Amino acid sequence: MEFTVQQIAAMLGGEVKGNGDEKINMLAKIQDAKKGQIAFLSNPKYEHFIYTTQASAVIVKKDFVSRKEISSTLIMVDDPYSSFTTLLEQYHKMITFQKVGVEQPSYISDTAVVGNNIYRGAFSYIGSNVTIGDNVKIYPHVFIGDNVTIGDNTVLQSGVKLYSGTRIGKNCALHAGTVIGSDGFGFAPQEDGSYKTIPQLGNVIIEDDVTIGANTVIDCATMFGDSTILHKGVKLDNLIQIAHNVEVGKNTVIAAQAGISGSTKVGENCMIAGQVGIAGHLIITNNTSLGAQAGVSKSITKEGQKLIGYPVFDIKEYFRSYAVFKQLPDLNYRLRDLEVKMKQLETEKKSVSSE
Amino acid sequence: MEFTVQQIAAMLGGEVKGNGDEKINMLAKIQDAKKGQIAFLSNPKYEHFIYTTQASAVIVKKDFVSRKEISSTLIMVDDPYSSFTTLLEQYHKMITFQKVGVEQPSYISDTAVVGNNIYRGAFSYIGSNVTIGDNVKIYPHVFIGDNVTIGDNTVLQSGVKLYSGTRIGKNCALHAGTVIGSDGFGFAPQEDGSYKTIPQLGNVIIEDDVTIGANTVIDCATMFGDSTILHKGVKLDNLIQIAHNVEVGKNTVIAAQAGISGSTKVGENCMIAGQVGIAGHLIITNNTSLGAQAGVSKSITKEGQKLIGYPVFDIKEYFRSYAVFKQLPDLNYRLRDLEVKMKQLETEKKSVSSE
Amino acid sequence: MEFTVQQIAAMLGGEVKGNGDEKINMLAKIQDAKKGQIAFLSNPKYEHFIYTTQASAVIVKKDFVSRKEISSTLIMVDDPYSSFTTLLEQYHKMITFQKVGVEQPSYISDTAVVGNNIYRGAFSYIGSNVTIGDNVKIYPHVFIGDNVTIGDNTVLQSGVKLYSGTRIGKNCALHAGTVIGSDGFGFAPQEDGSYKTIPQLGNVIIEDDVTIGANTVIDCATMFGDSTILHKGVKLDNLIQIAHNVEVGKNTVIAAQAGISGSTKVGENCMIAGQVGIAGHLIITNNTSLGAQAGVSKSITKEGQKLIGYPVFDIKEYFRSYAVFKQLPDLNYRLRDLEVKMKQLETEKKSVSSE
Repeated sequence: MEFTVQQIAAMLGGEVKGNGDEKINMLAKIQDAKKGQIAFLSNPKYEHFIYTTQASAVIVKKDFVSRKEISSTLIMVDDPYSSFTTLLEQYHKMITFQKVGVEQPSYISDTAVVGNNIYRGAFSYIGSNVTIGDNVKIYPHVFIGDNVTIGDNTVLQSGVKLYSGTRIGKNCALHAGTVIGSDGFGFAPQEDGSYKTIPQLGNVIIEDDVTIGANTVIDCATMFGDSTILHKGVKLDNLIQIAHNVEVGKNTVIAAQAGISGSTKVGENCMIAGQVGIAGHLIITNNTSLGAQAGVSKSITKEGQKLIGYPVFDIKEYFRSYAVFKQLPDLNYRLRDLEVKMKQLETEKKSVSSE
Repeated sequence: MEFTVQQIAAMLGGEVKGNGDEKINMLAKIQDAKKGQIAFLSNPKYEHFIYTTQASAVIVKKDFVSRKEISSTLIMVDDPYSSFTTLLEQYHKMITFQKVGVEQPSYISDTAVVGNNIYRGAFSYIGSNVTIGDNVKIYPHVFIGDNVTIGDNTVLQSGVKLYSGTRIGKNCALHAGTVIGSDGFGFAPQEDGSYKTIPQLGNVIIEDDVTIGANTVIDCATMFGDSTILHKGVKLDNLIQIAHNVEVGKNTVIAAQAGISGSTKVGENCMIAGQVGIAGHLIITNNTSLGAQAGVSKSITKEGQKLIGYPVFDIKEYFRSYAVFKQLPDLNYRLRDLEVKMKQLETEKKSVSSE
Repeated sequence: MEFTVQQIAAMLGGEVKGNGDEKINMLAKIQDAKKGQIAFLSNPKYEHFIYTTQASAVIVKKDFVSRKEISSTLIMVDDPYSSFTTLLEQYHKMITFQKVGVEQPSYISDTAVVGNNIYRGAFSYIGSNVTIGDNVKIYPHVFIGDNVTIGDNTVLQSGVKLYSGTRIGKNCALHAGTVIGSDGFGFAPQEDGSYKTIPQLGNVIIEDDVTIGANTVIDCATMFGDSTILHKGVKLDNLIQIAHNVEVGKNTVIAAQAGISGSTKVGENCMIAGQVGIAGHLIITNNTSLGAQAGVSKSITKEGQKLIGYPVFDIKEYFRSYAVFKQLPDLNYRLRDLEVKMKQLETEKKSVSSE
């Protein structure tokens, strides 16, 4: 993974000023960069760093004019920040997809079918009738149960567990320790106070472009043929709980430690903050925004609301109410004071009328 | 796993109407069922599906009279829903317990003793002096530390971790990634502001018929000979925290992401909702019901209460208070209004009395 | 791991009374102790146990005078409780560090460098260019990504996952299932409502003497060269979320299921209770104490506060406000009552003035 400045400039459509043969193997911030690294200068207030940086190359704006000598090679582009971001993405893609091949020992069923260019880390497990697309990366200690399918370019980090029947789309990223398809929490109360387990026989479907954080759990649906579903582009953070038969709509984003109870349907483009809890069997409409630690106990049917509290209501109103909540002891005192005065007035009135 | 309709009818005590030799390999809903599958019809409003379903067999009520031609073989029973549930349970049991034998590579200490009919998945680890009962299923990547005992018919899903000394009963189900017996969170503050680790030397005891969800954590007790205990029939959901020396009573059910702090004793038949937090060293009496996100900071001694809020109080009262909370800015305004009027009255009174 | 009473007495600086050759292999409480075990007597109200215990040895105060016959050997010390604690710690250290050597199969890259006296459990994975100090214990199913460094005496329990580039200090304990270095939750919204993943290229640095509970997750920093940092002596409980670029100061203690959002800096010697949530980009100053389930949405700049609620304010004031919150329906009623009376007074006044 080493490129010349010239090669990078070509990729960015930029112009080289200086030695285009300099070798680049890493990106860095301009103030930290060392030989072999490339940085960028966008904000003029960082300009002074360009005269002292040890970066082998710096991406600068086309019209940049140096006021002192610069030892780095320059790449002149329209938008240095955007060019640098492009490089970051390319670099990230390269390191993510550089692992290829099979480490031993690893386990794969005879009936599994795997695509080209995949990585199977040591101690990874692939069960019967599994189908895996191209460029899939399966890190060490991943467990893939029977009858699972995984689309192209999906990355399963170390220790991901996929129960039987899970279906995962293309370009997904599942982080370490995440569990997909565990039993839904369903128990039928018996007369003696004990509970009988309700068999959980559905699966989980994760569509394309979904990211799931570390140690998150998604339960399977209860019935045969039913699925817990994360639609295209959903982004889940770490330690989230998604219960059985839940559906999360396209491009909805959920922050860490939030939990969604059984059979609730969350719409598209929602933003759910950290530690939010949503009760079961609800419908949360599109474009709903839920603030941190909010608790939802009823369906939300009006689009575009920002809600908080337990149970939730409008976030601005919540903060107005909360401001008064903090004054409640004083409010109570003022109320008592009024009651005393009222009593006094009434007493006087009586004494007047009885005169 | 293929049965004839006749075999299934015999198991359910039902009567076959049609071809008893049809082969069945799956259950399905009547509207989705295909050839080779069995469905049921209980609710009359779904009757129309029976005339179009491709199911090889349908379970119907004894007195069902068809109004059109039906291509499926029928099984006539007293209660179709209950019969179908029985089939679901049998099916679930079959798929849960079908895995038998040892996959390689797997690790087992010379001193471990295992029962009959068990499954040891690839990359599973069994330490010294472990005792495992009959029909136990140990999925890939399970870690069983030294001196652990596990009762008959218990299932440990992929990646379950049992620290040394853990004791698990019969018929338990532990879901993927769950950790049992990690160190309790105990630290002694030192004069320099740092903390010294208090050794955690007890264990965890899980009695029979307990279910534990995915990525849940149960810490061991602090002292030798002491145990963190889940009693018979306890049901825990995913991502729950059970701290050191906690005891959870028989048939208590705890939903996802709840947390119980050290040394708290929870009674029998309690229902604890999602994201509830309970402080340490408390006693929660039997039949207590805690609503979502509730925070408990004092012991609960009166049985049968439904509580919510932080700290908790009666759930109906909470919602009454919360209704007023939402009106607090208005309340504050009304109070101010009264104060102004009172001031006016007093001023007038003074001016009257000074006349 | 068997010692004579004489050896233990020498370690504790105590004096033996009885048979110093008795063999000890375990510690126990005086009421539970059996032959081969050592107990202690500190609280006089437990004195009666010493006359019936089967412990081979009991640690007692120097000036202890028995009133009946005692079958156990005694070790006379200044402070029996403290001596017993010393034994507990020694014992804990011994069992923690007793595992040495390599179990097979395990995986280690050719380019990894490991210290002396380490344990590498079966199915553990060590990637390229990893450096591991002396006495490090790597339990089964641990994943250590490329370029990780781990200091002396650190223990990684089963299933710990360390992403590439993680740096861990000396004397740390990481519990089962914990994930270090997973991608930060960063996504750039696109015009079509979808999100583009922002590459997460930083790492996690964990300094010396840090303890991390089971199934906790710590994300890496976003930029090259940046780090999410836990400073020396930090203690984290189970199921905690630490987002990208967070910094946690020296000797800060965080209880289970708390979550800290991206780029927030938590000071030294803070105490953060269970299920607390802290928003992103904040500064929490030293010696801050946050009560259970607290939600922090603004920086905390005044040291030494105890805060609770969402958003947080002074804990005593919170409880005062909450006491009134519970009375809100009554308050509302009283207010209405006053309004009625006020109305009446005004009506009378009018009628008087119009007379």
